[in-house]
Amino acid sequence: MSAEPPVPETRVLAVASHVVSGNVGNKIAVFAMQSLGCDVAALNTVQFSNHTGYKQWKGTRVSAEEITDLYEGLRQSYLDDFDMMLSGYIPGAAAVEAVGRIAEDLKAKGQARGPGSFFWVLDPVMGDNGNLYVAQDVVPAYKKLIDHADLMLPNQFEAELLSDVKIEDMASLERAIQVIHERYGVPHIIITSVSIPHPDHPPHSLWVVGSSMTSDRRARPFKIVFPAIDCYFSGTGDMFSALMAVRMREAAVATPGLSQTRSWLSGDEVEATDLPLATAAEKVLASMNEVLDKTCRAMTAEVQRARDEMKGLGEEEAKKRLHLLQSRAAELRLVRNLESLRSPVVVCRAQKM
Amino acid sequence: MSAEPPVPETRVLAVASHVVSGNVGNKIAVFAMQSLGCDVAALNTVQFSNHTGYKQWKGTRVSAEEITDLYEGLRQSYLDDFDMMLSGYIPGAAAVEAVGRIAEDLKAKGQARGPGSFFWVLDPVMGDNGNLYVAQDVVPAYKKLIDHADLMLPNQFEAELLSDVKIEDMASLERAIQVIHERYGVPHIIITSVSIPHPDHPPHSLWVVGSSMTSDRRARPFKIVFPAIDCYFSGTGDMFSALMAVRMREAAVATPGLSQTRSWLSGDEVEATDLPLATAAEKVLASMNEVLDKTCRAMTAEVQRARDEMKGLGEEEAKKRLHLLQSRAAELRLVRNLESLRSPVVVCRAQKM
Repeated sequence: MSAEPPVPETRVLAVASHVVSGNVGNKIAVFAMQSLGCDVAALNTVQFSNHTGYKQWKGTRVSAEEITDLYEGLRQSYLDDFDMMLSGYIPGAAAVEAVGRIAEDLKAKGQARGPGSFFWVLDPVMGDNGNLYVAQDVVPAYKKLIDHADLMLPNQFEAELLSDVKIEDMASLERAIQVIHERYGVPHIIITSVSIPHPDHPPHSLWVVGSSMTSDRRARPFKIVFPAIDCYFSGTGDMFSALMAVRMREAAVATPGLSQTRSWLSGDEVEATDLPLATAAEKVLASMNEVLDKTCRAMTAEVQRARDEMKGLGEEEAKKRLHLLQSRAAELRLVRNLESLRSPVVVCRAQKM
Repeated sequence: MSAEPPVPETRVLAVASHVVSGNVGNKIAVFAMQSLGCDVAALNTVQFSNHTGYKQWKGTRVSAEEITDLYEGLRQSYLDDFDMMLSGYIPGAAAVEAVGRIAEDLKAKGQARGPGSFFWVLDPVMGDNGNLYVAQDVVPAYKKLIDHADLMLPNQFEAELLSDVKIEDMASLERAIQVIHERYGVPHIIITSVSIPHPDHPPHSLWVVGSSMTSDRRARPFKIVFPAIDCYFSGTGDMFSALMAVRMREAAVATPGLSQTRSWLSGDEVEATDLPLATAAEKVLASMNEVLDKTCRAMTAEVQRARDEMKGLGEEEAKKRLHLLQSRAAELRLVRNLESLRSPVVVCRAQKM
């Protein structure tokens, strides 16, 4: 395993949910970034016993005031000199606004230090597959603050909500990306799960689509197609955005002068597939594929064992028990797969759209 | 760097404080155990912006009810099958009692699975150097529950509080250990910082004293003497106990049959210096020494730079600012020193007392 971290000393503020057991939100993001050498400040927006996909959990949310207060705690002790911020699930519109004010403050401080000194990776967690799982007023709250984001990682549904473009085919997919660049000025975007089928892709494949805009806000889209793994997982979005934060930093630092350029945005001469964003996403998807593959193998064995143990239970009880066991087996297996995080083998490369 | 984790799959419940920025409590313990391959459930007893040694912080404590509630959340979803528990700072007597009930429940479940199935590492955080930094009623609360602990890691002051023995010389040090074995039946104990001088030790050295009791509760004491590093650090106790949990597990698993023995307690024929506890402590102190050395080198440079920057500030302001910067520089540098956690070079060996 490579002992050298892929990035220089990097201080990241991670704002997301915390679960006692399992690997979603900050619980997975903090470890992923720490194991790649980042000094992570973890501001937890909830503390739940487990993620809500189990359909039962205990714990409490952190209020917007507390989020602001914790940040003020950092500020007053000169602990707010962050190179990056990663934000994930934030409970409610008031809390989203509070996080937006933090981003604004950090961005202003970064500008004082010079271009490229602060970079915000925003996962605008709102819903999936056509279902909103936050309150309605969270959507306009996000729309107001995303012009501060440097890299945004919506899934297809969230990209639709933010662009007001219904994504049904290649043309509307590219239009949604163009709208997000143009309307909000977000320099980098990756749509993390594209569900529209593509005639040229192999069967059982998924794809992500990314773009870093040009100086006149034109999209430079690329796609990465990768094999689907036939398992349900939790925490994939959170792992993806945490690794993207680190690998984007790595790619920016590897390009002379880029990390001292506003939003680490490449010159107009750079082709879509040569973008640092594309290089970063290739590595991240390679890590994801390795971890997901290992999780899926273990999951199949665990669920089979669980089924055997549950023989004799009543139908309702067995169904509930199986759901809980499947939820647990779907937690990503990160800690014993450090090698996959640090030194993934890149197989799937970025392609032109 | 070794890619193989030192322990088999191990599920640990870690109960301690959480700080957004910095490395104390669960913030350091969770990463230390994860990076050695443990699946860690992190139950945070507070969320503060930074540790209280900065003399200013924001955030809130978690109530005893919430701690109980979060554990109930794990229990109801079959997420309470822990191999180990590590407990650190717990805010107040009611919360200590709540954690005691969790330990009791996990111990009972472990007993049902067979001897050695559950192991509790207890750091009874109460004070240091003669000063109590918790409420008075926390001391009797700990006294009531420590008979469930498998390994206890008090500092010298906490060992005095629990044994009611004033530690002033070698004789009273050994007596305190004997009392803790006898009175509470705690099988393994390490006193993590012994401040009494010893004529035979080299200058500028520190020592820890450990013991695993025999079947009739006699102490088997050993000591490890190591060079002192002339810097003030925070989080050392939390790092020590997290690494001890993992290395104790490693040492128990390495001894045939031991991890299926009650409290992983070696037979009476094993000499003090050959105890798994001694082997574990040697590795932990080696990791600590490497991380502390690297932290100290960086700290010296940082504090010098800070002093230069502060020229021109008023005396009061400069003093406050320097304290904050020193506090920050004293945070242990873990994430970029994974190698020291995973593959430390053992230099200082356990000796007979």
